[in-house]
Amino acid sequence: MSKLVFARHGLSEWNKLNQFTGWVDVDLATEGIKEAQEAGKKIKDAGIEFDIAYTSVLTRAIKTCNYILEGSEQLWVPQIKTWRLNERHYGALQGLNKQDTRDKYGDEQVHIWRRSYDVLPPLSEEKPDRRYQNLAPRDIPKGENLKITLERALPFWQDEIAPALLDHKTVLVAAHGNSIRALVKHIEGISDADIMDLEIPTGIPLVYEMDDQLNVLTKYYL
Amino acid sequence: MSKLVFARHGLSEWNKLNQFTGWVDVDLATEGIKEAQEAGKKIKDAGIEFDIAYTSVLTRAIKTCNYILEGSEQLWVPQIKTWRLNERHYGALQGLNKQDTRDKYGDEQVHIWRRSYDVLPPLSEEKPDRRYQNLAPRDIPKGENLKITLERALPFWQDEIAPALLDHKTVLVAAHGNSIRALVKHIEGISDADIMDLEIPTGIPLVYEMDDQLNVLTKYYL
Repeated sequence: MSKLVFARHGLSEWNKLNQFTGWVDVDLATEGIKEAQEAGKKIKDAGIEFDIAYTSVLTRAIKTCNYILEGSEQLWVPQIKTWRLNERHYGALQGLNKQDTRDKYGDEQVHIWRRSYDVLPPLSEEKPDRRYQNLAPRDIPKGENLKITLERALPFWQDEIAPALLDHKTVLVAAHGNSIRALVKHIEGISDADIMDLEIPTGIPLVYEMDDQLNVLTKYYL
Repeated sequence: MSKLVFARHGLSEWNKLNQFTGWVDVDLATEGIKEAQEAGKKIKDAGIEFDIAYTSVLTRAIKTCNYILEGSEQLWVPQIKTWRLNERHYGALQGLNKQDTRDKYGDEQVHIWRRSYDVLPPLSEEKPDRRYQNLAPRDIPKGENLKITLERALPFWQDEIAPALLDHKTVLVAAHGNSIRALVKHIEGISDADIMDLEIPTGIPLVYEMDDQLNVLTKYYL
């Protein structure tokens, strides 16, 4: 049996300000740190022993990963950071206040940007920073919907996460609402229409137990 | 030019108790956390941008690494954890108070254990934990001198650190007094007799700038 644990990072500084965040590297708020530490305790109490941990290249997910590993007394577990687990890139909406955006573009348009599977947000013109230096500029997203988020996360599932699980490893994925949602869609075979209604709670480890073919045997929250 | 930065972790809980630590996974004390955060600020002020970070599988070095990366606003930098950068294994002395050990074995014997290059401490019978599960039991040290510490650190230098430097990467090594001392011996060609007098200060980044052959051009503390 293989075990996959998702952890969505908790409250960030921009969540508190009600701003679109995406790829902007905003830190966890104090509450978000506590959520991650609590998650670590739950992992420890559940006796879950990781073989490997995957996270994004965004501080709020990496710190969540580190607090979980530290809180469950396994900070030594190997950790891989990848842009493929980043939050959905919110394009030119990044940094905008959500209410201001509704006031400007209307409730319906913002609802479509947030909840449609394949509509893109307005694209960003901002230059990506040094952490994406190994990507060709044309390969760096300027704005994503969930469909594109899944398309760029999927290779990492196929090349890294799934092989680890097929090798009977116990895996932690500490990431973001939409990158986790994208992988859950793939793992559970959820339709394009239904996936947007699926909410991943923050700070509460989501555990999948899988068979040798990576079919889901059970799914539960800690 | 290549740049290699060593960071020795700061005060740990057992440093405060004056106990031999070695491979025992003791946490940083509050002072040690502050030392690492200060080191991160110095790295940031010096404008040092890492391509990769290496650390041991011991919590006090990993946390030092993480605080340095976070404090210099590059927590996204890839990090590799390896037992080969662990502190020297202090054998059966681990967990003993240093003064108690002197009272029991005599000052001279303890001085020899601490300061000779190739005398082994009494060996430990303790079972290693899960983090060493990929090592055959016979390959797990039960006690080390600096000579053996260097012999098991050297393959990691040769296979990982040196190739990264030869590739003009900027490298962070967050580790321990003796694993850093061992690598410094190799890098600077220091004799067996002289190396034991070399003290690596805690929490102060030690920078080596090297040429294409990894000869040392300059060496300085931040």
